[in-house]
Amino acid sequence: MKIERPHKDAATLNATVQAVIDDVRLRGDAAVREYEQRFDHVCLDRLKVSDSELSEAEAAVAPELKDALLLAHHNIKKFHEAQRFEGKKIETQPGVTCWQKAVAIERVGLYVPGGTAPLFSTVLMLATPAKIAGCNDIVLCSPPSHEGKLHPAILVAARIAGVNNIYKIGGVQAIAAMAYGTESVPKVYKIFGPGNQYVMAAKQIVSLHDVAIDMPAGPSEVAIVADETANPAFVAADFLSQAEHGTDSQALLVTTSKTMLNDVESEIERQLQSLPRKTIAAESLKHSKLVCVDTIDHAMDIINEYAPEHLILAVSDYMSVAEKVKNAGSVFLGNYSCESAGDYASGTNHTLPTSGYARAYSGVSLDSFIRKITFQELTPEGIRNIGPSVAVMAHNEQLEAHKRAMTMRYETISQK
Amino acid sequence: MKIERPHKDAATLNATVQAVIDDVRLRGDAAVREYEQRFDHVCLDRLKVSDSELSEAEAAVAPELKDALLLAHHNIKKFHEAQRFEGKKIETQPGVTCWQKAVAIERVGLYVPGGTAPLFSTVLMLATPAKIAGCNDIVLCSPPSHEGKLHPAILVAARIAGVNNIYKIGGVQAIAAMAYGTESVPKVYKIFGPGNQYVMAAKQIVSLHDVAIDMPAGPSEVAIVADETANPAFVAADFLSQAEHGTDSQALLVTTSKTMLNDVESEIERQLQSLPRKTIAAESLKHSKLVCVDTIDHAMDIINEYAPEHLILAVSDYMSVAEKVKNAGSVFLGNYSCESAGDYASGTNHTLPTSGYARAYSGVSLDSFIRKITFQELTPEGIRNIGPSVAVMAHNEQLEAHKRAMTMRYETISQK
Repeated sequence: MKIERPHKDAATLNATVQAVIDDVRLRGDAAVREYEQRFDHVCLDRLKVSDSELSEAEAAVAPELKDALLLAHHNIKKFHEAQRFEGKKIETQPGVTCWQKAVAIERVGLYVPGGTAPLFSTVLMLATPAKIAGCNDIVLCSPPSHEGKLHPAILVAARIAGVNNIYKIGGVQAIAAMAYGTESVPKVYKIFGPGNQYVMAAKQIVSLHDVAIDMPAGPSEVAIVADETANPAFVAADFLSQAEHGTDSQALLVTTSKTMLNDVESEIERQLQSLPRKTIAAESLKHSKLVCVDTIDHAMDIINEYAPEHLILAVSDYMSVAEKVKNAGSVFLGNYSCESAGDYASGTNHTLPTSGYARAYSGVSLDSFIRKITFQELTPEGIRNIGPSVAVMAHNEQLEAHKRAMTMRYETISQK
Repeated sequence: MKIERPHKDAATLNATVQAVIDDVRLRGDAAVREYEQRFDHVCLDRLKVSDSELSEAEAAVAPELKDALLLAHHNIKKFHEAQRFEGKKIETQPGVTCWQKAVAIERVGLYVPGGTAPLFSTVLMLATPAKIAGCNDIVLCSPPSHEGKLHPAILVAARIAGVNNIYKIGGVQAIAAMAYGTESVPKVYKIFGPGNQYVMAAKQIVSLHDVAIDMPAGPSEVAIVADETANPAFVAADFLSQAEHGTDSQALLVTTSKTMLNDVESEIERQLQSLPRKTIAAESLKHSKLVCVDTIDHAMDIINEYAPEHLILAVSDYMSVAEKVKNAGSVFLGNYSCESAGDYASGTNHTLPTSGYARAYSGVSLDSFIRKITFQELTPEGIRNIGPSVAVMAHNEQLEAHKRAMTMRYETISQK
């Protein structure tokens, strides 16, 4: 059984997006300001968030939200700090030592979408590992309100994560500004963060030649595997918390219990009625699916074929079922590990591969902000041990200068 | 000081490449066969390499080359096995446990270019870590000769690395076949390997929507930092072993010694005369550069700005200079660590970021063949510890279903 995802054709956007990118690349801040006026309906004299705006934001955020941000940051930091890489020196032959060293990407750009709600959680998810990695320049762009302001919770989250290079720029113009640099915005080497289809297209276009991006992206999605021990109200709530993201979100329930399927279906209908984002969720539910299968193994086959961004295993022996996961972004185990825990505050990253990209991509982690540079040190003994083999291989690949670079060293040693 | 790379415009190729991709996607093997006839001038009835072809290859490869392949494979295996990832379970709060688990990408495709020489070293560099990672399906494509054969050394290298799913397909049609699958060729989730500009364009096109790729690529390059203790003949040999790769390769010497610069220049001229690939190397030398600077720090600023694929540090205190490396693919330390050691047999991978991509990308390693899937397990205690914060954050992001998924669990626990 293959679950189809809702499709969208990005080709039609590309010309529009490319034009904005080219213009920002050519005209810098002036172009950025014009697009901010056109798309965000705001006239900005200064693109960078000022110190006084940062102070105002501190006063504007309620203490209980600030405390929640601090707790989330603590957990995200703790989990991502544990991901630090220590390379081991490996002597592959006597005199031939190789190792990897983690080095932070010097300049990174973080995009935080605007829209109806301030996505301060994304600020924590991207800025916290960037800071742990030791990235020198961390640039954050987010679209301003009509009043030319960023939401105070975004600014406070950035302060908590240690980022203060913040720009009031959204959409394609933000991606272009970070990819190429403008008078105000420093050029970065890698761009992170979610966005609408225009932002995604812009990230893909600039990634073809000029900067790296975190990963390709599509609409958010959850798959839930439930046996008869699951709690139908919990499952329905998780299902709906996916559906409320957007009309193109997808939720999928695969259960071994027909009763569970029916109970979840009723619960979804019941809970939906009282949701503020009911219209969005109802639209998303149209392409969401509830499926009953005979065994958990069959359920896991469907899951691994689908490769969900989020996977909830609401089954009694979730630890053994977890061993069967081949393709997923992030996995939530048992009845108490809801997706919203990982979306906000458990410590795992919420920037995850969608659209089946989990087959080949990992979610954002500390790795996303570093490179592992390889080093090698050969001694004369090392040259003796691998030199002849290198020479034979280079000769057979018809690369005589490669061979000579080795034989010359080999002969110098032999003469000593 | 900024070193410019030679530029090429890929835009003109894209239409041609896209047409071949679309055709293979539509017509499968039939299209692949037609393009093999058109581009490789060979009429193939069977695309997959047969068992008898594999046996013939064993007999055709000289024992000294076979031994060299075995030694190289041993070292590559040893270095990449040491890269295995063991995730640690982290309790971010009491009752909230998060971890990462490495899971192999199930299906990978390896592309090995043809051309004047058989690049069996690339087979070892890609297939060895794929095997260690535990990828289920490892597909290898390489263009056949006019006689419809793959070079025996490529087949023997594949056997040594443990790959037997080998296809006689080259160019864009190979990339398309692996990206979408045909009657003969299984679809893969990630494609690795070098190639000419058509292959590179094909990889970028399919990576936009359908499969992951190892990294974007450009012409090969080396940068060498030398002080007065370097050996000018060695430096010249390393310089030339880059130049012989192709006319668009680039070599760069940055030295603190004017004498060294002059001596290397003379040595290059002298060694060039006796190279079989003299014409290619001479063309490449036109855009290669030798630069004298005042200090090693200044040299390293130029290097980090350039972000070379290969970096040779032919300086006396190379361990302390190595600490200054911010942007490079692979680093070779001292007078005896020549690039050809790493190209073939030291154990490090030779698939590395070119064109300045080292600013944001790592070379191929075991990581390239796995994903790190995150897992989390919350207990009722965990819900108590982070539940209220999750609820506050979800509410402030106007995602009430997210909040409810948490509060519902929180309330269930409190009732107990």
